Amino acid sequence: MSLVTVGTVAFDDIETPFGKAGKIVGGAATYISWSASYFTEDIQLVSVIGDDFPETELDMLKERGVDMEGLQIKEGEKSFFWAGKYHTNMNGRDTLDTQLNVLADFDPVLPDAYKNAEYVMLGNLTPQVQMRVIEQLESKPKLIALDTMNFWMDIALDDLLKVIKKIDVLIINDEEARQLSGEYSLVTAAEKIIEMGPGILVIKKGEHGALLFHGEDIFFAPALPLKEVFDPTGAGDTFAGGFMGYIAKTGDLSFEGMKKAIIAGSAMASFCVERFGTERLKGLSDSDIRERIQRFERLVRFDTVL
Amino acid sequence: MSLVTVGTVAFDDIETPFGKAGKIVGGAATYISWSASYFTEDIQLVSVIGDDFPETELDMLKERGVDMEGLQIKEGEKSFFWAGKYHTNMNGRDTLDTQLNVLADFDPVLPDAYKNAEYVMLGNLTPQVQMRVIEQLESKPKLIALDTMNFWMDIALDDLLKVIKKIDVLIINDEEARQLSGEYSLVTAAEKIIEMGPGILVIKKGEHGALLFHGEDIFFAPALPLKEVFDPTGAGDTFAGGFMGYIAKTGDLSFEGMKKAIIAGSAMASFCVERFGTERLKGLSDSDIRERIQRFERLVRFDTVL
Repeated sequence: MSLVTVGTVAFDDIETPFGKAGKIVGGAATYISWSASYFTEDIQLVSVIGDDFPETELDMLKERGVDMEGLQIKEGEKSFFWAGKYHTNMNGRDTLDTQLNVLADFDPVLPDAYKNAEYVMLGNLTPQVQMRVIEQLESKPKLIALDTMNFWMDIALDDLLKVIKKIDVLIINDEEARQLSGEYSLVTAAEKIIEMGPGILVIKKGEHGALLFHGEDIFFAPALPLKEVFDPTGAGDTFAGGFMGYIAKTGDLSFEGMKKAIIAGSAMASFCVERFGTERLKGLSDSDIRERIQRFERLVRFDTVL
Repeated sequence: MSLVTVGTVAFDDIETPFGKAGKIVGGAATYISWSASYFTEDIQLVSVIGDDFPETELDMLKERGVDMEGLQIKEGEKSFFWAGKYHTNMNGRDTLDTQLNVLADFDPVLPDAYKNAEYVMLGNLTPQVQMRVIEQLESKPKLIALDTMNFWMDIALDDLLKVIKKIDVLIINDEEARQLSGEYSLVTAAEKIIEMGPGILVIKKGEHGALLFHGEDIFFAPALPLKEVFDPTGAGDTFAGGFMGYIAKTGDLSFEGMKKAIIAGSAMASFCVERFGTERLKGLSDSDIRERIQRFERLVRFDTVL
């Protein structure tokens, strides 16, 4: 079941209360692809990098089954770079530096082999770039999911609303849901957002878990209570990657299937935050993932109350 | 299974974005008793009021099986009064007025019939008053639970730490857990607090649900996603009342039993916030409660993921 992942492949320089990462590999499509690769081996990457990006990092993803035909490498240019510092309690972060570099004029080109993808995960990028990917698809995928952020709601709302009409699942956090809908109640926000186009809404609440909305149905998944969140960078992308990877694996688009995909995504995100960058996502075993998913099951299971 | 409930029986004047309640009946022991009464009929109330408190409100609780021998009525004095106004998004509130009145020199006296209670729920009060209740018990209850607040951590920490040593279950919110432990991570906070005495810790996270800690075991219960929270006053007490009422009903002190008690408490709290004061808690039917608990089950149930 082919999964096209679109997003940044980039460098991050992260500082958390636990230390400094230095310049490491990051980017939405990187996290999405790593995470999804534990559920499906047929991943097709669409992104852009400069000639400064380490070959070994790309090779590791290729070994996980990630096709790189859709990755543009711009000779003589630099990859996207972001530097940020998290606050003491990890409940916020400051951006210290953003260098768009190759991202400034990124025009995604879908190879022919990608144009009939069954599943598409559009990571956080300008809505125009996300739309350009959808326009190049030759057949309607079984599921298109899209991640975005408040920045695009501020400066490109019209484009965002256009692309949201074309997708099946919108994945955003609670503050973004409130901004997009103008509603404080997440239940009311979800009703309004689902009317904008996507039939399904996932609201990420960080340490407070995630909500899945579809019609009248609501599913709540907790986040795993952790002693330490070492580095939250990429947790949302890792969640999205696990979610879409699981759906691509099972092909189950029912609400019951989506619930399980949310748990898979939450489990992957709980690994991501344990180390800097993609470090913890590399070299996970099937039993690591099974054990983690079982912890989620134990965390919320209870017998019939009455 | 007798349940002694201790706390304020009082007047509140509440303003929320949805309206003004005027002067209505409130108080921790009121909410706890109403909520617990849907699970057990053997409730014994310890509190103090002035002669200004409406007889009809007491009669309604008596009809629910609440014994009032432990309720002191001070002639010529006034009941405790609190006035508050919630912020626009219900995510905070300002206290407009507090009149201690009869509470200023409250000395709780346990009637003989209460002194061998099997279950004790100590609602939020000065730690000294909570301790005075424990001192009057003639036999060790099966379970003592205690609610408190950051105010007592600020001004009476030593007394609070003493009483916490004597109890089995501490029920506090996330900010209180952080203040009491000095730890931001709720997992680490829970470890430290459990070392202070109570074997079991419940951390209430409001709209984000509740966590139950016991040794290495963690259980997470969501809050029901609601379109509107009409009035959050008393939700925490209602939660505690449902929790203890359910335990008094089942007598099940295992971790599995406590999980179900948390769900029962969460269901009762979700009713409480739908109207001003105790309005919604009056006249619930068994089927109302069953239906609400089933909504919780549907909200978090998922099939085996892998």
